[in-house]
Amino acid sequence: MRRLRVVGIGCAPEHLTREAAAALASVDYVIAADKGPDDPLLAVRRALCEEYGVPLVAVPDPERDRDDPADYPRAVRDWHAARVAAYLEVLEERPGDAAFLVWGDPAFYDSTLRIAEQLAERTPLAVDVLPGISAIQLLAARHGLVLHGVGRPFLVTTGRRLAADAQTHDELVVFLDGGFRARELPGEWQVWWGANLGTASERLVAGALREVAEEVLAARAAAGAEAGWVMDTYLLRRCPG
Amino acid sequence: MRRLRVVGIGCAPEHLTREAAAALASVDYVIAADKGPDDPLLAVRRALCEEYGVPLVAVPDPERDRDDPADYPRAVRDWHAARVAAYLEVLEERPGDAAFLVWGDPAFYDSTLRIAEQLAERTPLAVDVLPGISAIQLLAARHGLVLHGVGRPFLVTTGRRLAADAQTHDELVVFLDGGFRARELPGEWQVWWGANLGTASERLVAGALREVAEEVLAARAAAGAEAGWVMDTYLLRRCPG
Repeated sequence: MRRLRVVGIGCAPEHLTREAAAALASVDYVIAADKGPDDPLLAVRRALCEEYGVPLVAVPDPERDRDDPADYPRAVRDWHAARVAAYLEVLEERPGDAAFLVWGDPAFYDSTLRIAEQLAERTPLAVDVLPGISAIQLLAARHGLVLHGVGRPFLVTTGRRLAADAQTHDELVVFLDGGFRARELPGEWQVWWGANLGTASERLVAGALREVAEEVLAARAAAGAEAGWVMDTYLLRRCPG
Repeated sequence: MRRLRVVGIGCAPEHLTREAAAALASVDYVIAADKGPDDPLLAVRRALCEEYGVPLVAVPDPERDRDDPADYPRAVRDWHAARVAAYLEVLEERPGDAAFLVWGDPAFYDSTLRIAEQLAERTPLAVDVLPGISAIQLLAARHGLVLHGVGRPFLVTTGRRLAADAQTHDELVVFLDGGFRARELPGEWQVWWGANLGTASERLVAGALREVAEEVLAARAAAGAEAGWVMDTYLLRRCPG
């Protein structure tokens, strides 16, 4: 059966693992979403494909409905369905093994595995998955952090849920927060924050949340201005007492 | 200043990243804990050091007091202090840059960063950290899983805390559970389990918790019998309704 390989590539070319490199060299082509003429993640994927001599098939990314936050899961589902249709067309046109290169790790806040599952329901595919270094790991590494106190749990959550989750948790890793909602939290927290981790426009800030919140917003704006896009993630830890 | 590099090597030699390989090649020696004549993780580290032509300094691992679970943080602290003293001796005897090779990722349930911090308090060291593929990522990849529902949070916790944490969470990743305590949970759960991930004795089980609990215990015993050690991790997701 033809293979569809879902390959985590980490947050930077130097995160490529040996098995990810071998997988990239093993496929007939790579399928990648094309989000416009200056898509920086497409450029990274293109560079890796060139390095390994693999053709890249760029597929224009369908529009995503961001107007209806009340039905977020449905908006995401519709967007996935449109992507599935577009990728299926590529698979039907081009024989051979294919790969998706996933920024970070396919297991964290990424839709590729759900898309691969839907593709495999519609055309015969053996899907395999290779893990990659995720942004939360790079965040921890840059700050020299362990993500939890000794023997303690931590919650991985999203900006959308932060206000509720911070009421019941003391250690939180936050993804998908476009507005640094941590600054609205009551109580005293330490924060370790990073934007565009692994890229030239990377920014890092750490400190007492109240003291560094403005610095985070400024660094976030600077990263966005430098790169033309911004993705950030952070760890919050409640101060004892 | 001399460097101490904390290098995540993932769960298998094929997880080594480009930057981890470069870091390994850059240091004068690697320090590794030696837990006895058949220490399997020491053997992996030794093989990597041989591949990169770096000397490995094996340090007999101090005994850890496992008799006092009531004071778990203190037992861990004492054990770390003994390790710190042993490693400090090596650093004082041998000049040059050194590295620790961390199985999985230094940010998850690993003590190396805490040890490095204590070393840096006692001798001048520039510590840097490189992330590696952690067992939870390999678990997710092997099962083809995203670790959370769309837009949902997940809790990373330990076996020791599972009974309490499962009362308030629907998606949990469990580390450090020597007894597969999930089988004692009330309610209906799906489980995705793995032992000795990334090694020759790897075992995987997935399904409805009640139906596969015995299979997990048998697979756990088989992995342990085959390798002489067993480390397992799993994802639990509460069944809807």
